[in-house]
Amino acid sequence: MSEQLYPVNNLPQTFIGCAVPYPEADTAVFGAPYDSTCSFRPGTRFAAQAMRPDSWGLETWSPYQDKDLEDYRISDLGDLELPFGQNEEALAIIEAQTDAILGAGKQPVMIGGEHSLTLATVRAAAKHHPKLRLIHFDAHTDLRDDYLGNPYSHASVIRRCWDILGNGRIHSFGIRSGLKEEFAWAKEHLDFHPFEVQGAADLPAEIPVGTPVYITVDLDVLDPSVFPGTGTPEPGGITFRELQDALLSLRTLNVIGFDIMELSPHYDQSGVSTAAATKILREMLLAFGKPRE
Amino acid sequence: MSEQLYPVNNLPQTFIGCAVPYPEADTAVFGAPYDSTCSFRPGTRFAAQAMRPDSWGLETWSPYQDKDLEDYRISDLGDLELPFGQNEEALAIIEAQTDAILGAGKQPVMIGGEHSLTLATVRAAAKHHPKLRLIHFDAHTDLRDDYLGNPYSHASVIRRCWDILGNGRIHSFGIRSGLKEEFAWAKEHLDFHPFEVQGAADLPAEIPVGTPVYITVDLDVLDPSVFPGTGTPEPGGITFRELQDALLSLRTLNVIGFDIMELSPHYDQSGVSTAAATKILREMLLAFGKPRE
Amino acid sequence: MSEQLYPVNNLPQTFIGCAVPYPEADTAVFGAPYDSTCSFRPGTRFAAQAMRPDSWGLETWSPYQDKDLEDYRISDLGDLELPFGQNEEALAIIEAQTDAILGAGKQPVMIGGEHSLTLATVRAAAKHHPKLRLIHFDAHTDLRDDYLGNPYSHASVIRRCWDILGNGRIHSFGIRSGLKEEFAWAKEHLDFHPFEVQGAADLPAEIPVGTPVYITVDLDVLDPSVFPGTGTPEPGGITFRELQDALLSLRTLNVIGFDIMELSPHYDQSGVSTAAATKILREMLLAFGKPRE
Amino acid sequence: MSEQLYPVNNLPQTFIGCAVPYPEADTAVFGAPYDSTCSFRPGTRFAAQAMRPDSWGLETWSPYQDKDLEDYRISDLGDLELPFGQNEEALAIIEAQTDAILGAGKQPVMIGGEHSLTLATVRAAAKHHPKLRLIHFDAHTDLRDDYLGNPYSHASVIRRCWDILGNGRIHSFGIRSGLKEEFAWAKEHLDFHPFEVQGAADLPAEIPVGTPVYITVDLDVLDPSVFPGTGTPEPGGITFRELQDALLSLRTLNVIGFDIMELSPHYDQSGVSTAAATKILREMLLAFGKPRE
Amino acid sequence: MSEQLYPVNNLPQTFIGCAVPYPEADTAVFGAPYDSTCSFRPGTRFAAQAMRPDSWGLETWSPYQDKDLEDYRISDLGDLELPFGQNEEALAIIEAQTDAILGAGKQPVMIGGEHSLTLATVRAAAKHHPKLRLIHFDAHTDLRDDYLGNPYSHASVIRRCWDILGNGRIHSFGIRSGLKEEFAWAKEHLDFHPFEVQGAADLPAEIPVGTPVYITVDLDVLDPSVFPGTGTPEPGGITFRELQDALLSLRTLNVIGFDIMELSPHYDQSGVSTAAATKILREMLLAFGKPRE
Amino acid sequence: MSEQLYPVNNLPQTFIGCAVPYPEADTAVFGAPYDSTCSFRPGTRFAAQAMRPDSWGLETWSPYQDKDLEDYRISDLGDLELPFGQNEEALAIIEAQTDAILGAGKQPVMIGGEHSLTLATVRAAAKHHPKLRLIHFDAHTDLRDDYLGNPYSHASVIRRCWDILGNGRIHSFGIRSGLKEEFAWAKEHLDFHPFEVQGAADLPAEIPVGTPVYITVDLDVLDPSVFPGTGTPEPGGITFRELQDALLSLRTLNVIGFDIMELSPHYDQSGVSTAAATKILREMLLAFGKPRE
Repeated sequence: MSEQLYPVNNLPQTFIGCAVPYPEADTAVFGAPYDSTCSFRPGTRFAAQAMRPDSWGLETWSPYQDKDLEDYRISDLGDLELPFGQNEEALAIIEAQTDAILGAGKQPVMIGGEHSLTLATVRAAAKHHPKLRLIHFDAHTDLRDDYLGNPYSHASVIRRCWDILGNGRIHSFGIRSGLKEEFAWAKEHLDFHPFEVQGAADLPAEIPVGTPVYITVDLDVLDPSVFPGTGTPEPGGITFRELQDALLSLRTLNVIGFDIMELSPHYDQSGVSTAAATKILREMLLAFGKPRE
Repeated sequence: MSEQLYPVNNLPQTFIGCAVPYPEADTAVFGAPYDSTCSFRPGTRFAAQAMRPDSWGLETWSPYQDKDLEDYRISDLGDLELPFGQNEEALAIIEAQTDAILGAGKQPVMIGGEHSLTLATVRAAAKHHPKLRLIHFDAHTDLRDDYLGNPYSHASVIRRCWDILGNGRIHSFGIRSGLKEEFAWAKEHLDFHPFEVQGAADLPAEIPVGTPVYITVDLDVLDPSVFPGTGTPEPGGITFRELQDALLSLRTLNVIGFDIMELSPHYDQSGVSTAAATKILREMLLAFGKPRE
Repeated sequence: MSEQLYPVNNLPQTFIGCAVPYPEADTAVFGAPYDSTCSFRPGTRFAAQAMRPDSWGLETWSPYQDKDLEDYRISDLGDLELPFGQNEEALAIIEAQTDAILGAGKQPVMIGGEHSLTLATVRAAAKHHPKLRLIHFDAHTDLRDDYLGNPYSHASVIRRCWDILGNGRIHSFGIRSGLKEEFAWAKEHLDFHPFEVQGAADLPAEIPVGTPVYITVDLDVLDPSVFPGTGTPEPGGITFRELQDALLSLRTLNVIGFDIMELSPHYDQSGVSTAAATKILREMLLAFGKPRE
Repeated sequence: MSEQLYPVNNLPQTFIGCAVPYPEADTAVFGAPYDSTCSFRPGTRFAAQAMRPDSWGLETWSPYQDKDLEDYRISDLGDLELPFGQNEEALAIIEAQTDAILGAGKQPVMIGGEHSLTLATVRAAAKHHPKLRLIHFDAHTDLRDDYLGNPYSHASVIRRCWDILGNGRIHSFGIRSGLKEEFAWAKEHLDFHPFEVQGAADLPAEIPVGTPVYITVDLDVLDPSVFPGTGTPEPGGITFRELQDALLSLRTLNVIGFDIMELSPHYDQSGVSTAAATKILREMLLAFGKPRE
Repeated sequence: MSEQLYPVNNLPQTFIGCAVPYPEADTAVFGAPYDSTCSFRPGTRFAAQAMRPDSWGLETWSPYQDKDLEDYRISDLGDLELPFGQNEEALAIIEAQTDAILGAGKQPVMIGGEHSLTLATVRAAAKHHPKLRLIHFDAHTDLRDDYLGNPYSHASVIRRCWDILGNGRIHSFGIRSGLKEEFAWAKEHLDFHPFEVQGAADLPAEIPVGTPVYITVDLDVLDPSVFPGTGTPEPGGITFRELQDALLSLRTLNVIGFDIMELSPHYDQSGVSTAAATKILREMLLAFGKPRE
Repeated sequence: MSEQLYPVNNLPQTFIGCAVPYPEADTAVFGAPYDSTCSFRPGTRFAAQAMRPDSWGLETWSPYQDKDLEDYRISDLGDLELPFGQNEEALAIIEAQTDAILGAGKQPVMIGGEHSLTLATVRAAAKHHPKLRLIHFDAHTDLRDDYLGNPYSHASVIRRCWDILGNGRIHSFGIRSGLKEEFAWAKEHLDFHPFEVQGAADLPAEIPVGTPVYITVDLDVLDPSVFPGTGTPEPGGITFRELQDALLSLRTLNVIGFDIMELSPHYDQSGVSTAAATKILREMLLAFGKPRE
């Protein structure tokens, strides 16, 4: 029997390998439990809460990258307290959080929550990095000018990001659903790669070295067989390995922040969707963060 | 084989026994699929959509009341289209709907949706019936002045109704959870019956004959064993028969409208919660509507 | 707020984009909720009822085909009323329905229900089109002469179709389970392609131009990871994209009718199987129907 | 470590305490996996298969009756092989099975399957016992003369039994759903006790001593909170203890056979419905069988 | 928008109202995630992890007792790290933990885990309090001398406690399953109240004032309709209110520690069992702890 | 109607096609329901019990191999009775069982249960076949020297097998998770093929003809989309066909025994994981057993 002294207090349970105190951290992870504009199946509010305990079934070391979370300085800050049904205030809180993290010279990482929240992190990131590029993985275009009269719902989030970033600075991959008008608009204004994500491997050659990049992953880009636990499952998606490979191909970019959105864990009681989300997050933390020296 | 002519078009599926055209109807049922302020488990948006097909497993005749929906003129209007994440607009649409139904001399019946929506129907009802009484079945007080800064969430709906109706005109039953301050406030301002619903049987003797009454049923007043499919299950509730008996004891009142709220069907995959909601709605339609003459 | 007049009646909910009145339609969709001969896990009776509301999570426009359901004239007739446990009468009703639709010069589309029902539509189709070919996607041979003494169960449906169509006019793809005798028989009497569906792309070159074709899709041809919600999941199946590609490769054929069978939605509570079925149906409607001119 | 010799072969798994060989048995249990006329949610075919392994979580001794299955001679014969979708043949097989068991002087016990199958056992029982009484626990009247044109569905089974037994020899308890006409008919022709089962305790005084009795339990007489795993859950039912007490009050009757019907285990993934069914079956075997001398 | 400074670190999530640091606490709660001797359905290891986040759906104030967790000094220490499959070491760790808490003059509260773990807390409690009484709520006797050769499994835990405490000092309530020999033994050696829990209300009069008492609640004493999420559901149990009333009737006793065992949350995906466990724990903390002065 | 004589007794339900009496069998299958050292989600104890009835949805004939279980002599012995929480005794029972089967000149086949049990079968196999090779399919390295102080848990099983077999005699495929140290150790001591299983096809050329081989399949080598029902789902795995192809490529080896481990059926309520396991087992029985002459 181990020589522990009792009682043990082991309560704080961060995402695995992310227990560095905030002041010392290079990367700061926070949950954003909000899904009030979700138009089909809600529940992404539970994502971060489900991912943290299940992440302890992972190892901290990745055999794909031969890197270990223990060699990074990452702080999991817990979940923001967001007021349900009050979109503007929720976006403002997230923007302030992201702004503060970037202002401290750290890398912000958001666990959604619905995809509309990415507007808040991109707003903050663009303020700090005017030349920001956005790399976007998704099943859906999210390019409507408004949805049921709301210009800030999940269905418009990339359009709102374009309002900030402008033409040619958003790179979209994996899209397989949208309006005809959205696809047409996307081809004109975005670097648009529907259906597949393999093209992501070309970005390091195309984007000028050192350009600040924000990556947003709507996990429904994965096929629903891999990731059933999401609000709007769209068949015909990519495999886990395709997403993993696409993300790892971006390792040399200057990724100043990223997010992982739209896990709705209650719709997948096998836990497999949560497992996929946690593993993708580990791989992203290892690929886009910087290890201690 | 029956002598039907083919093809048969049998698409429109109302709640059972509610297929009278609106202009001829005495009662108008509508779904209100909205749950954006829900603070715990969302999903009440799916309630009406789940209840309609399952209601066809019921009979139209109730052996408890010896009444039959076929003898009533009830129109199921389908679901309102409500903009997720935009509370004020959603409330405005429901209030307009209720106002129009009451203005046509009909009885409005809302299938929620989260409980905050009852504010809209009560607003409309109070406009038409200044002496309105509200009879309220619930597990939770719903009496906070605000919740996370929002004065219009599900946690404040009865407090907002009191703003309209004032002291002594709200009769609350079955409450078993709330803040200490809410219970104290309730005892002062409401006709407050925590834990049990038997006291409802006294209301017909206490409320002046003919007084207009609106009944709101938050189905979580039922014990979670009977009704697991809800956002915030609160153990220690009442049985199905206790709720049914309490409601039927109100039959002689002048019920000018009512609602049935907070079924979240995805949290009960056995279908039992949906079955409970549909049977309660049938009994309420029979008890509080008026049969054809 | 939109300028709607209240109350809104929006009840009839067809499959998305299929709300044209029957007399004006070119294509007529109907549900066939019947599963009484199912020998393992029943529940396909709920397929059409589950697919209609979930189809509204799809777009009407397909980025794969650049076609839009809004440009077609499709009528969703709802579900037939079929007497459980009375196979002959059920088949007779479906045959009459199909016969009437074909007689009106329209294209019939059946949402099963168990696969045995395809005998009824093929009977009607063969009466109208004596040179009919049948293209068949399935995990199972369905070629038994009888099953537990019943010659009309799901396990015999393709054998019964062969009784009508004869040698060389049935093209089977994706089969990966059956008796040794069935495989031997299939190789002799059918155009038989076990395990894979890629060979479907050769059919437009092999089938004489203009030949009437009926397509039956038993969705269990898909791998159970993609489509767990079915009665008899058979591992080792094809991906969603493989099925989609195979179907789209048949676009130039003269498809006079088709069906999509064996979704059993209660066995997949994530909703992913229903999503797969609805998307395949959208793609088939767009590929095999004819747009308005 | 125990002194077992290896290899151990322990395959045959009967219902707990029912492993006596048939020739020596006083009671013979068989499963009847058939649900083809079920009009709502099928799946009772899986009942016996689910109950056998779960019964091993029970003890063989009942503290309610101070009796032990080990003191009885009961043989579990396994499941009949019934042809799905072929009602008449299925009924004929069950009738033959019951006839043979009764002819051998044993007590037949059927695990359904849908309630329509009770007609087969009652037919056989009435042939052997012309003065047979039927005691019937159910949520539904099951008294339609036909249902969707079928006179032999679950909705008509008690009416068909009345065809055999005639007025006053059927005692119905717990009924809480049906057509107005069925309730009226029942009051005229049956010993009819709607809503409650307490009246069962009076039967031993009312039925002449020694009269042969068959008991049929449609488990949906239980409230859906207790027993969600059934095809047509009907809220407002009785508790487990009320059913148990009612059954034990019949112990002094001459019960020549019985059945327990309508468990649909896939609709209750918690296993609680199966646990309820197995415990009721244990209590019935102990109450109505005869222990070894 | 509130005037929070960002980033917020809100990770440590105790059971609601239990965030006092250990040195200042009067009561210390710990989780014991261990279920390796469970003989039927495992999964109680997940209980504490499921209860903590869901407890935040409760209020800290109880309207039943008019007491508030905020008025107590309770520390939730998190979960012990217990080695799966190594029973003796697991028991030793728990005993050491309980010993340390008692030694510091605090009240230990364990969230199980399987019931066998209660032996460890009772061992420690009996060491500190030689006159200890054990009050035991359960569906099962748990009195076997061994089970499959193991004297320390959940099926023997109360027998092992008796080895320590001796005759007349264990008070058992609600038992409804066991061997005939266990019931006989219990009547001789315990204060044994099968089937019901009402008799608990007599204990304050029977137990000498000030006698140290440990209370162990195996939550399967509840009826499975109320509490399906457990390893061995046993129908015919008590209601939530009956358990609550029985526990509150013990308020005047000198309760030096207690536990709440056998929630297996994965077997109840509605979350209702977890809700019942969290509410019972809140009531026990309020009833048996001591508020700040 | 068939000419069966009644009553029919059909209880013993083996895995399909495995009903030959043990003395005449060439292959003996047994279930090992044990999961007490599982550190995350338990439940593999239910695997064999779930696979047997579902296997009857398979055919006995494989179209992939053109072989039929009816042409083999295979005996399904049922499940061993293993004492939960007592690892050493459980391993001893399994080792004795395997020893006896091998001693009788038969091929042992184990249905797990947790992977740690493979140590028992490998021990027995190595005793009978000192030159034994182990072929290992898995997502996890299972190479820890101990886990939480236990050297015999599932996390160490392959390390313990190496203690017996030594360097170069274990061939591992598909591994995608482990500690950095485990991967390093594996490269030094094993024939180690991470991520993929295609390399298995080279083994028949590399292993000397006639060398005795034991194959252990931890089914979590499959991607969780294919096989969600397992304790520790690890995204990024192989497809069903990849595993099937890898196994069939080993057909010419001298496989003296094998196992199939880690199905945890309760975590996949769609039944798809159980279907995958049963089909893999059929293919392995056909590939590695010997047909009658």
